[in-house]
Amino acid sequence: MMYTLGEIAKLINATVIGDSSIKINSIASAVSATNTQLTYVVSQKYQSDLINTRAGGVIVNRDLLKDCPTNALVVDDVYLAFAKITHYFKQQVLPSNGIHSSAQTNQASIGQNCTIGKNVVIGHNTTIASNVVIEDNVTLGDHAYLHPNVTILQGCSIGDNVVISPGVVIGSEGFGNARDDQAHWHTIAHLGNVVIGNNVTIGANTTIDRGTLEDTQIHDGVRLDNLIHIAHNVIIGQDTAIAANTGIAGSTTLGKRCMIGGMVGIVGHLNICDDVVVNAKSTIDKDIKTPGIYTGIMPLMPHKQWQNVGLWLVKLDKIVKHLNIKLKNLKD
Amino acid sequence: MMYTLGEIAKLINATVIGDSSIKINSIASAVSATNTQLTYVVSQKYQSDLINTRAGGVIVNRDLLKDCPTNALVVDDVYLAFAKITHYFKQQVLPSNGIHSSAQTNQASIGQNCTIGKNVVIGHNTTIASNVVIEDNVTLGDHAYLHPNVTILQGCSIGDNVVISPGVVIGSEGFGNARDDQAHWHTIAHLGNVVIGNNVTIGANTTIDRGTLEDTQIHDGVRLDNLIHIAHNVIIGQDTAIAANTGIAGSTTLGKRCMIGGMVGIVGHLNICDDVVVNAKSTIDKDIKTPGIYTGIMPLMPHKQWQNVGLWLVKLDKIVKHLNIKLKNLKD
Amino acid sequence: MMYTLGEIAKLINATVIGDSSIKINSIASAVSATNTQLTYVVSQKYQSDLINTRAGGVIVNRDLLKDCPTNALVVDDVYLAFAKITHYFKQQVLPSNGIHSSAQTNQASIGQNCTIGKNVVIGHNTTIASNVVIEDNVTLGDHAYLHPNVTILQGCSIGDNVVISPGVVIGSEGFGNARDDQAHWHTIAHLGNVVIGNNVTIGANTTIDRGTLEDTQIHDGVRLDNLIHIAHNVIIGQDTAIAANTGIAGSTTLGKRCMIGGMVGIVGHLNICDDVVVNAKSTIDKDIKTPGIYTGIMPLMPHKQWQNVGLWLVKLDKIVKHLNIKLKNLKD
Repeated sequence: MMYTLGEIAKLINATVIGDSSIKINSIASAVSATNTQLTYVVSQKYQSDLINTRAGGVIVNRDLLKDCPTNALVVDDVYLAFAKITHYFKQQVLPSNGIHSSAQTNQASIGQNCTIGKNVVIGHNTTIASNVVIEDNVTLGDHAYLHPNVTILQGCSIGDNVVISPGVVIGSEGFGNARDDQAHWHTIAHLGNVVIGNNVTIGANTTIDRGTLEDTQIHDGVRLDNLIHIAHNVIIGQDTAIAANTGIAGSTTLGKRCMIGGMVGIVGHLNICDDVVVNAKSTIDKDIKTPGIYTGIMPLMPHKQWQNVGLWLVKLDKIVKHLNIKLKNLKD
Repeated sequence: MMYTLGEIAKLINATVIGDSSIKINSIASAVSATNTQLTYVVSQKYQSDLINTRAGGVIVNRDLLKDCPTNALVVDDVYLAFAKITHYFKQQVLPSNGIHSSAQTNQASIGQNCTIGKNVVIGHNTTIASNVVIEDNVTLGDHAYLHPNVTILQGCSIGDNVVISPGVVIGSEGFGNARDDQAHWHTIAHLGNVVIGNNVTIGANTTIDRGTLEDTQIHDGVRLDNLIHIAHNVIIGQDTAIAANTGIAGSTTLGKRCMIGGMVGIVGHLNICDDVVVNAKSTIDKDIKTPGIYTGIMPLMPHKQWQNVGLWLVKLDKIVKHLNIKLKNLKD
Repeated sequence: MMYTLGEIAKLINATVIGDSSIKINSIASAVSATNTQLTYVVSQKYQSDLINTRAGGVIVNRDLLKDCPTNALVVDDVYLAFAKITHYFKQQVLPSNGIHSSAQTNQASIGQNCTIGKNVVIGHNTTIASNVVIEDNVTLGDHAYLHPNVTILQGCSIGDNVVISPGVVIGSEGFGNARDDQAHWHTIAHLGNVVIGNNVTIGANTTIDRGTLEDTQIHDGVRLDNLIHIAHNVIIGQDTAIAANTGIAGSTTLGKRCMIGGMVGIVGHLNICDDVVVNAKSTIDKDIKTPGIYTGIMPLMPHKQWQNVGLWLVKLDKIVKHLNIKLKNLKD
């Protein structure tokens, strides 16, 4: 795909400040974009990225324009304009039939009712069970085993000795949406892929979303249990193990050798350092910078007792203040 | 399906009080049932619904009989009798082969190994990837995109511009069961459907159950992330967005423009008003009547610290009482 | 599969103390192993199991050797050696095509694109919808209904009147891994199966892992909702019902007639007695020995209030101590 800045401006209703004939072939972050790429900057917070960008064009609002060192596409709502333009850079996948003639399957053992798309490359001694769908441009390493009913979407890449359990989805769209002034959501087309290293195992019905512009990454030796959700742009470090039902929100990075218990929730945009152990059911809502064992759950109680505790729990701050004042009064 | 009240009475071991020759073609709630429909009332709590019902017949127990304005089917356990009779009104789906001759596919782009059932209607410019199963009587709008390995069960209806990610299940049976006096469960056959509006996106491996008698509803513009569970009879208002791993129990209604974080649990039979934001991992266990931001999670701590906090947490009510008494004693 | 102890010793780099010509055909627990079976004992904690074992050979470390009453395979890291050897006793499944000639389908109604493996036995009046994959040696009872896109892996056994919703995975590998001295994970091949009783229903996209050496068991009359994770070696007692998004970790046993709410997390190796009710979103982290209703969740609050409560919550132990000291000082 290739558009001039002028064509892009029309698609997102922007004003071009600069050279509208520049040709753009993809979208990248302000930091990594080159002169054939488009980028976007949503707020003053990223001012220095904007000043230093080498992108061919930048979607900005009027306030940011003064710091734009290259061609600008000026709009009112940058994130919404970005969401809209992503769709023009997304490869459309049409349903394939059977094994596409351009696929290199290297005598892989392939079950019935599989779909293998264009330019797929499958390594040696790999087994693909029945009813697996692999879209265009996927790469699969040696000695991999894909169980039945697995879906791998376009462009994802998977290393050697990887085991993918039934019902797993790799490369689904990230949950990124921009809201317009009428509170309607506009989906962002996710243009990154999922890149999975060697010796990784992925449990049944787990889902791994593709990145927005860069890739979601699962490094070598990672162990993922069942029904886990890995959002867009997440990076999971080498030899980290994650138990079932856990969810990791967008753009969070986990270090190496972490052990994350079951049904843990990890919010987005966090950094968890190496060698962190998190007990089952905890919520991680801030960065973890020190290796160690972490927990945060409400202990189980007979329901009657929990009701009594709950009564005080929701006014814990008020109780403490109240007691401290009373104590102070007594003292005086 | 069509049964007389007399036939139904035999199937659920009931006594008919009234006209056993009345013909019944479906089941509905006491409020909406007409004179060819059966309904049920489980307790005194719904007395006014019973008094005002226009149903052709009502399953009641002996205590409720006096308030029944129409033909009654008297049983000991109303809910159990209801569970049993639902199965006689459920359309049996037999496995189809390929695309049924009665389906209108409007030149949709359909991948291999898809099953498209009887009387399915597919809109214009819709894409259906490989290994998708669509059962009888499903309606699918224009410009929809169904990813691989999606299952849509009988009778569901899906609007325009809807994107359904891999592994999604729409129209699975609700989790409704009646218990008999030996503590055995009897499944309720769910006779409602799932109705999904326009411009909805649904994330990978999310499941949406069909309604018991009415429909589960997902309104226009809703955004659902991966691995979400939407139970029977849930209604999700326009432009509400829900992050991954969240679960919503039966008969709960969410308002418009809500934003529900990941791994939130919402219990059944609640009403959440418009414009509510709930942070990740919280539990919603009562109605929310005021727009705003809500949270309820245990903060993450080093495990050692959590153990100490936990010790006091389970007796918080006792501590507060103890301290107050001590304070009072000191004062006296 | 059949190996001599000497052959096994080579595969896991062990020293044989005893008869290396003994023939081993499978692996079992120390308690149940017979003289053609291999077992392993990881620590002093299981000393009495070791002393009483009747296994043909035991993987032990040098410290445990003195208590080994039979042939020993001495290694440095017992669990790692066990993890490695399991793979040699795992039946390799090659992708099948269509319905294998050795399968007994008893005129089951089978949809298109199904794979039915070797020696599968299907009962009478059973329906299997499209795109279902059933691997070798699975047994399926009478009057069962398998919805589309279900996967049942090798050797599992399922009773009569069982309903399996779309996307369900039965018999996926358990999440058991041994870590070597470089913190790399080695997968344990799970050699047990999943055994499901009669009158069980399983909700959409739920996953049930196979046991390590023994079987994961779902007893008669159990009700499982959607997106539930049941780990290896879990046993769920008769007529227990579990709501959506709940996860149960490895080797936990639930009693009869329990009702477990949605999104409950149950950690591993626990015993929950009969007739326990656990409210939605709670965490079970210790045995429950008394029937009753249990809860443990943080109440939902306006976010502002939660922040204030949270501030004190993480130092609850310190506050209580502080207040008690102050009170004591006042008294003196």
